Amino acid sequence: MSGFSDLAPLFDPRSVVLVGASERAASVGGRTLANIVDHSDFRGTLHLVNATRPEVRGLACHRRVADLPSAPELAVIAVPAAGVMEALRECAAIGVKICVILTSGFGETGEEGRAVETEMKALAQSTGMRLYGPNCPGVTNINKRLGFTFSPAFKDDLRPGPIGLATQGGGLGRNLMQAMERGAGFALWCSTGNEVDLQVADFIHYMAGAPDVQVIGTILEGIKDGPRFLAAARAAAEAGKPVVALKVGRSEYGMKAAASHTASLTGSAEVNSAAFRQMGIIEVDDVDELVDVASLLARGRPQRGARIAVFGSSGGACALAADMVGQAGIVLAGFAPETTATLAEKLPSFAALGNPVDTTTVTLTNPSVIEETLAAVANDPAVSLVMLPMPLDYGPVSLTVAERMAAAQRLSPVPLVPVWMSERTGAAYRHFAEAEMVPIRSLRNAAKAFRRFIDRGEWEPGAMPRGMGAGPPGPTRTLSEAEGKAMLRSSGLVVPEGRIARSDTEAVEIAAELGFPVAVKIASADILHKSDIGGVVLGLRTAEAVRAAFEAVREAARRHEPAARIDGALVERMAPSGGQEILLSVSRDPVLGQVMTCGLGGIHVELLRDVSRRLLPVDAAEAGRMLRELRGFPLLQGLRGAAPCDLEALCAAMAAVSALVEARPEGIEEIEINPLRVGAAGEGAWVLDTVVTLREKDAGPCG
Amino acid sequence: MSGFSDLAPLFDPRSVVLVGASERAASVGGRTLANIVDHSDFRGTLHLVNATRPEVRGLACHRRVADLPSAPELAVIAVPAAGVMEALRECAAIGVKICVILTSGFGETGEEGRAVETEMKALAQSTGMRLYGPNCPGVTNINKRLGFTFSPAFKDDLRPGPIGLATQGGGLGRNLMQAMERGAGFALWCSTGNEVDLQVADFIHYMAGAPDVQVIGTILEGIKDGPRFLAAARAAAEAGKPVVALKVGRSEYGMKAAASHTASLTGSAEVNSAAFRQMGIIEVDDVDELVDVASLLARGRPQRGARIAVFGSSGGACALAADMVGQAGIVLAGFAPETTATLAEKLPSFAALGNPVDTTTVTLTNPSVIEETLAAVANDPAVSLVMLPMPLDYGPVSLTVAERMAAAQRLSPVPLVPVWMSERTGAAYRHFAEAEMVPIRSLRNAAKAFRRFIDRGEWEPGAMPRGMGAGPPGPTRTLSEAEGKAMLRSSGLVVPEGRIARSDTEAVEIAAELGFPVAVKIASADILHKSDIGGVVLGLRTAEAVRAAFEAVREAARRHEPAARIDGALVERMAPSGGQEILLSVSRDPVLGQVMTCGLGGIHVELLRDVSRRLLPVDAAEAGRMLRELRGFPLLQGLRGAAPCDLEALCAAMAAVSALVEARPEGIEEIEINPLRVGAAGEGAWVLDTVVTLREKDAGPCG
Repeated sequence: MSGFSDLAPLFDPRSVVLVGASERAASVGGRTLANIVDHSDFRGTLHLVNATRPEVRGLACHRRVADLPSAPELAVIAVPAAGVMEALRECAAIGVKICVILTSGFGETGEEGRAVETEMKALAQSTGMRLYGPNCPGVTNINKRLGFTFSPAFKDDLRPGPIGLATQGGGLGRNLMQAMERGAGFALWCSTGNEVDLQVADFIHYMAGAPDVQVIGTILEGIKDGPRFLAAARAAAEAGKPVVALKVGRSEYGMKAAASHTASLTGSAEVNSAAFRQMGIIEVDDVDELVDVASLLARGRPQRGARIAVFGSSGGACALAADMVGQAGIVLAGFAPETTATLAEKLPSFAALGNPVDTTTVTLTNPSVIEETLAAVANDPAVSLVMLPMPLDYGPVSLTVAERMAAAQRLSPVPLVPVWMSERTGAAYRHFAEAEMVPIRSLRNAAKAFRRFIDRGEWEPGAMPRGMGAGPPGPTRTLSEAEGKAMLRSSGLVVPEGRIARSDTEAVEIAAELGFPVAVKIASADILHKSDIGGVVLGLRTAEAVRAAFEAVREAARRHEPAARIDGALVERMAPSGGQEILLSVSRDPVLGQVMTCGLGGIHVELLRDVSRRLLPVDAAEAGRMLRELRGFPLLQGLRGAAPCDLEALCAAMAAVSALVEARPEGIEEIEINPLRVGAAGEGAWVLDTVVTLREKDAGPCG
Repeated sequence: MSGFSDLAPLFDPRSVVLVGASERAASVGGRTLANIVDHSDFRGTLHLVNATRPEVRGLACHRRVADLPSAPELAVIAVPAAGVMEALRECAAIGVKICVILTSGFGETGEEGRAVETEMKALAQSTGMRLYGPNCPGVTNINKRLGFTFSPAFKDDLRPGPIGLATQGGGLGRNLMQAMERGAGFALWCSTGNEVDLQVADFIHYMAGAPDVQVIGTILEGIKDGPRFLAAARAAAEAGKPVVALKVGRSEYGMKAAASHTASLTGSAEVNSAAFRQMGIIEVDDVDELVDVASLLARGRPQRGARIAVFGSSGGACALAADMVGQAGIVLAGFAPETTATLAEKLPSFAALGNPVDTTTVTLTNPSVIEETLAAVANDPAVSLVMLPMPLDYGPVSLTVAERMAAAQRLSPVPLVPVWMSERTGAAYRHFAEAEMVPIRSLRNAAKAFRRFIDRGEWEPGAMPRGMGAGPPGPTRTLSEAEGKAMLRSSGLVVPEGRIARSDTEAVEIAAELGFPVAVKIASADILHKSDIGGVVLGLRTAEAVRAAFEAVREAARRHEPAARIDGALVERMAPSGGQEILLSVSRDPVLGQVMTCGLGGIHVELLRDVSRRLLPVDAAEAGRMLRELRGFPLLQGLRGAAPCDLEALCAAMAAVSALVEARPEGIEEIEINPLRVGAAGEGAWVLDTVVTLREKDAGPCG
């Protein structure tokens, strides 16, 4: 996956044409012109196109794009929907690199609009000119103060900073921009509209390479092209830039609403979250949390084993803060003796000098102690960030405290994070915002953001998935158990020896050859739940028993599945008994491709939904991490004196299944191994039953 | 538990003496005087006491309390710590009903201060005069505009309303008061300081009876007197007034910090949360959530099966709102045909008329449609409340929208709840606040608050616990299995028949009498984990086997527990095999008393911590509710074709254990039944093993 274009002409063009420039202040063309001319620091060449007027606001206009003397790098299209295609064709003809299509009235309005979008896409593909939009508010480069947007709010939201934003949906995107109010600074914002060509993935990829972006924030309703998204996320991970993502569609209501709002294919939310974790993308639950986490990462980078300090003047707020931190599983730092000594020297005897530090209200009456004590805490080598619970707005008293805390920040190597708990946001709050300390608005939110911050520090990139096998569903074919097992065996998995018997006599012969005890199972690709219909008999120890079992499973099949094509019965050597049963599967998410799911047998998957997921590839190390995520993992380690399972064999089996699928990514629709029996250490992992489903275009079971 | 005094003299006294009235504006006495004289609507008689001045601010002062012509109902003590006890004694002597002790420097400072608090407590007990504090900011009655408090913020936080607040810790309490900024209205606030006498429970009890309080909010760090708290909560439940509680101490850090801040006994957080659920107390996670939920309940009362509507103008915000609602398990209402018809008539064709209603930005350009469409949604009989996601502050445009929405509220029988998602809180936000629509500050918070609101509508009060057996630990004595089983049998539980054998011959005789198969178990009150040391042999079918088992368990005991006193061996008829194993216990929380815990055997309790808890009493109906809370409950119902368990017998057994403890609440420290085997329907529930621990003052196993 490459195909990412250079988007510099979009974010910092040397020349621009505004197609549809207008005198009318309230029109899209008029508002866009005002943003470029009045509110931007644009120093390149600006061309205007207006079909009827020779000049707009005193600036000369061309009648059409084709009349331009040379090709500008960027075109901004603000003409009514009916004129858009023509404008685009002219742009392509003269060699414009990128077009921003502000105009709406396309795919979001119905069939006709979608047809025009297909034309747009074809134009982009045939000419190489890239399209942004349509039905979008445009693009904003805050660090360069450039707004190719019709938004009247452009001029209000101009706090520069290191966070880049790519959002689907202008409303939620602008919501993030308004977080400038609490001191968050943004490098740029793109809101991608109908994504006829360029999509969120392209902007993440651009920001991964943009020197002024350190953290990437994104809001997604649907991922248009999964492999492209994964490639962009990989680029961000390689550049060491965290991506903080809010993905709408984690409940059925949300999926339905997002699908109807953006007309995207929606994959499984569980697969999506698993993919995010795997790529190091930090998934958040709401817009304010996106700002909390992105700002924190913009202010400091977490190390492994990050610990925090709590520093406040209200005993109750400190206790509540410690409670939240504890509930989030965060570790409070233990202070070095010098830190404690400084606190003891500066604070009253009844202050709490541990962590949390409860200064008592001495900091309100004598704020001068704040700077030194807080900086001492922040400079303690064990401390990665300092939480400052502020339960109240005490007016000027709070302002002084905020000023001293901001001064302490200048002496501190780690972020000091005010948690502004009050509904009253007066001068002190604004001081924190102006100092770009980005106050978090509740202790709960703060603890959650710190947890994400710390988790990012613990994240180790594994093999990065590329979205193997992504795509819409198609025709499939299910293999019989024997065929499926043969495929797994040839891929290195351990499968009990066995053969198909066509008659009872043959069954007895095979059993004798394999050695007793054996299992007899009905053999038919048409019967998936063999046990449920009595199609499986285990632990047969005599020829007679094998003969009877052969008849019994055939009879069961005739009775319950009269239409099934029967190949005979599979006679298998019994696998070693005992151990732990595992469900292991690979299935295909239409957006993100092949994904492995594992869980313990019995109630763990079905009742408790205790599973772990990864996009392929999964190697043995990643398999180990998957298993450790299971709540039931202690059962594999040997709970209460039970023998630990053969984890090595289990991880090897998982990696082998992954390798099998990797070798034919387009060929396999689904593999389900249920159960995979894992014995005690050294006893291996055995495929006891499997259903393999191929995509029809694939050649065959071992092709 | 009664002992609740009438607190009207505290909240609305006819006469007050301020002891320590001062000219100095910054002093406690001076600030309190200003609050009473300048900022309160106090119309009763005010006496002042000052030891040295004949008048303060032109008002005549008495030199001491003893000089007062008559006893005021309320005394407010603002003298330095050294003079407090004398002032209190004089107040008691003349017949003051309640004293507010603002002064600090007592229990919170150390041993000496705690000794003075003991004196205060003794004075209150011997005279009946009630004490509030010390070390507290005083009391605020907002609805009557009365402030017997030294807080300079009193005059700033005066929005009246139906929510009463009782908090431990002034900082967090004042934080709640500052939520007036978003339109929350409060009836009164007490912050209880060191709780030497009156405690949060007393104020909850008062508010349960106060006509101007409809919802009670509380912040607790430690519950001083559990049974008193439960009695107050019961009074609130009986008055139909929801209690919304934030309890600090749900993590180890929080427990430690709260204990050091308030010096309260801390019980188990899990028991505390279980007790809250049982009493219908709505437990919240943070201060802002307390305001969200209390305000919602102040604005509307949930009915069973409450459903919500989402109404907004941003497709993205509506999709995210629906997603949050879905994740919280909330059901979106289906609209009546008339509602849909109104929406279709008033909104553009491309609007989404389902639920969520996405009006599109027509409501920004033509706000007049809001009132009618929103009122139509709110008047739909299926709708219990309407969520209004507001992602942005668009300045004057948003203000108009807010005005139209507030107008719609006046036409609507259910709460319209704006969710103000932006960090920018301009005129529109303030309009919502002034209209007392109490905007919630994130979609996530809103979904959480709605969930609590709906849950309250589903809550059915069961038997209300009274805190049986609460109190600090003391000496205990553990019964042998045979003794414990005898006690359970006599309380109506089903226990396998059995007797103690002193010799192998006696063991064989007992076995023959009971009928084979039998179990043989070492009998000793000193050996708790009999199986672990080989002290249990099951399924014995012959006399010889019984004889051998008798020797084997004695030998095992000698080897592993040489010091244990051995009574012999318990020979028991085997219980029916199969079924499901349950762990059932009653233990004692020092604060809240006896609590029943149940869970499924195997991994469910130990690994998955899947348990359900209730304070006693638990009757069969409550036992059924406990079981249904277990994640593993489907296993009891018969998962995948397994036979359902004898739930009736299980619930009866749980109720019988509860009744046993109720009959001797001071006598039982702990009962653990592990396992209780529950057979298929009709097969009953069998106590297979038990450990019963008595409190030493109790008479004996069957006393």
